[in-house]
Amino acid sequence: MQIKSNQRIDDLEYQGLKIIQDTQGFCFGIDSILLSDFAKEIKENSKVIDLGTGTGIIATLLCKKTKLQQIIGVEIQKDTAQMAQQSIILNKLENKFKIIQSDIKNIDQILQPESFDAIVTNPPYKKAQTGLTNQNEKQLISRHETTATLEDFIKTAKKMLKDKGDLYLVHRPDRLVDIISLLRQNKIEPKKIKFIHPNTQKEPNLILIKATKNANPFLKVEKPLYIYNNKGEYTDEILKIYGKKE
Amino acid sequence: MQIKSNQRIDDLEYQGLKIIQDTQGFCFGIDSILLSDFAKEIKENSKVIDLGTGTGIIATLLCKKTKLQQIIGVEIQKDTAQMAQQSIILNKLENKFKIIQSDIKNIDQILQPESFDAIVTNPPYKKAQTGLTNQNEKQLISRHETTATLEDFIKTAKKMLKDKGDLYLVHRPDRLVDIISLLRQNKIEPKKIKFIHPNTQKEPNLILIKATKNANPFLKVEKPLYIYNNKGEYTDEILKIYGKKE
Repeated sequence: MQIKSNQRIDDLEYQGLKIIQDTQGFCFGIDSILLSDFAKEIKENSKVIDLGTGTGIIATLLCKKTKLQQIIGVEIQKDTAQMAQQSIILNKLENKFKIIQSDIKNIDQILQPESFDAIVTNPPYKKAQTGLTNQNEKQLISRHETTATLEDFIKTAKKMLKDKGDLYLVHRPDRLVDIISLLRQNKIEPKKIKFIHPNTQKEPNLILIKATKNANPFLKVEKPLYIYNNKGEYTDEILKIYGKKE
Repeated sequence: MQIKSNQRIDDLEYQGLKIIQDTQGFCFGIDSILLSDFAKEIKENSKVIDLGTGTGIIATLLCKKTKLQQIIGVEIQKDTAQMAQQSIILNKLENKFKIIQSDIKNIDQILQPESFDAIVTNPPYKKAQTGLTNQNEKQLISRHETTATLEDFIKTAKKMLKDKGDLYLVHRPDRLVDIISLLRQNKIEPKKIKFIHPNTQKEPNLILIKATKNANPFLKVEKPLYIYNNKGEYTDEILKIYGKKE
């Protein structure tokens, strides 16, 4: 396959999957891997959206980890959407995984509202104009809330999910109050949360949240996930997620 | 000291402190010990309220762990308030620790609103009419939201705290969404949260939250606290909290 000079094909080291990434853009991290694992309970024949799919990493993994019927990746950036499209071809996922290049805020004009069983999303973590903004515009859109805020992602999920449909998202712990408050305001009730810690002695640096549209309140805080054990090696749980251990 | 036949004097095993408890009522647990440790950063000369003080365990410990000026324990149950009063005498804390027998919802009629630096509270964990209700009425009021709901505790904190005053509370993880949503609605912004796990492999069963009136959003999720290590012994952190280790 022909790729551009600023792009590279990365091996996901999971069932032969590959992903095309821009060497100057935002490259996938462990957060995407963890979210796809957290969402692998998505039921057979589900219709799913990946909001802000980027290079398509989460949707690609979900095609293999679940028996979903269809997943639609929505991505605002043209170049990134094209890379995701090429990765679909590379992984022979054309029957399941489609890309729509669009602002997530307009997706209800393109797709049928309230018709999706699940939504997955790895939204930008940082508020616009906070911290050091990445100079590269592609990285800026991926990491900062420049084109869509957390509230836009949650409001879009509300519009597109069926009654009792599930939203799976990954984010930073420092935004937990924003996330929980916005979810409840939008009647997508947080049902399950998992904190990801570098090791047992460190603060969490990622959170995984499952929230269900119109569900009753009751939150399950799951066992934490530690990336490294006390010897500095990957924990068994991480090795299993990466498919390196049964 | 004369106590009733249904009461006993328990040694807190911390700096010689003792607490009078009703053998048929709600007895203090590790949650109160952990909250008083979490709140030990309360500044010198602070004026503090303990909302729903019960037998006064948290306030008693804070008198020793901090240099607070005054702490007022508010307790609706007459017998329990009397026990707390007796414990104050037993521990010679009359100059610092006062008991007011009142419904927390009316405390702004008795004390000056917006005049307190900090509030600590271990409110009832369970919603009224959920789960098995304790047959004993004293236990019912202590454990279930019969006389005051979580929202009542948070609204009272809002009324009584100074601008930038701190609320410290202990609760169950399954109520995290309620707690966070209510705090933000009442402009007491959650700033710090700590999850308490039985050990590194178990889900948390308690949460400690610090929230600050009128503060900016930014949550710090702290390192978790584990009660037991992998050998089933108390961890060093717990031994330190109990004053058994430097």
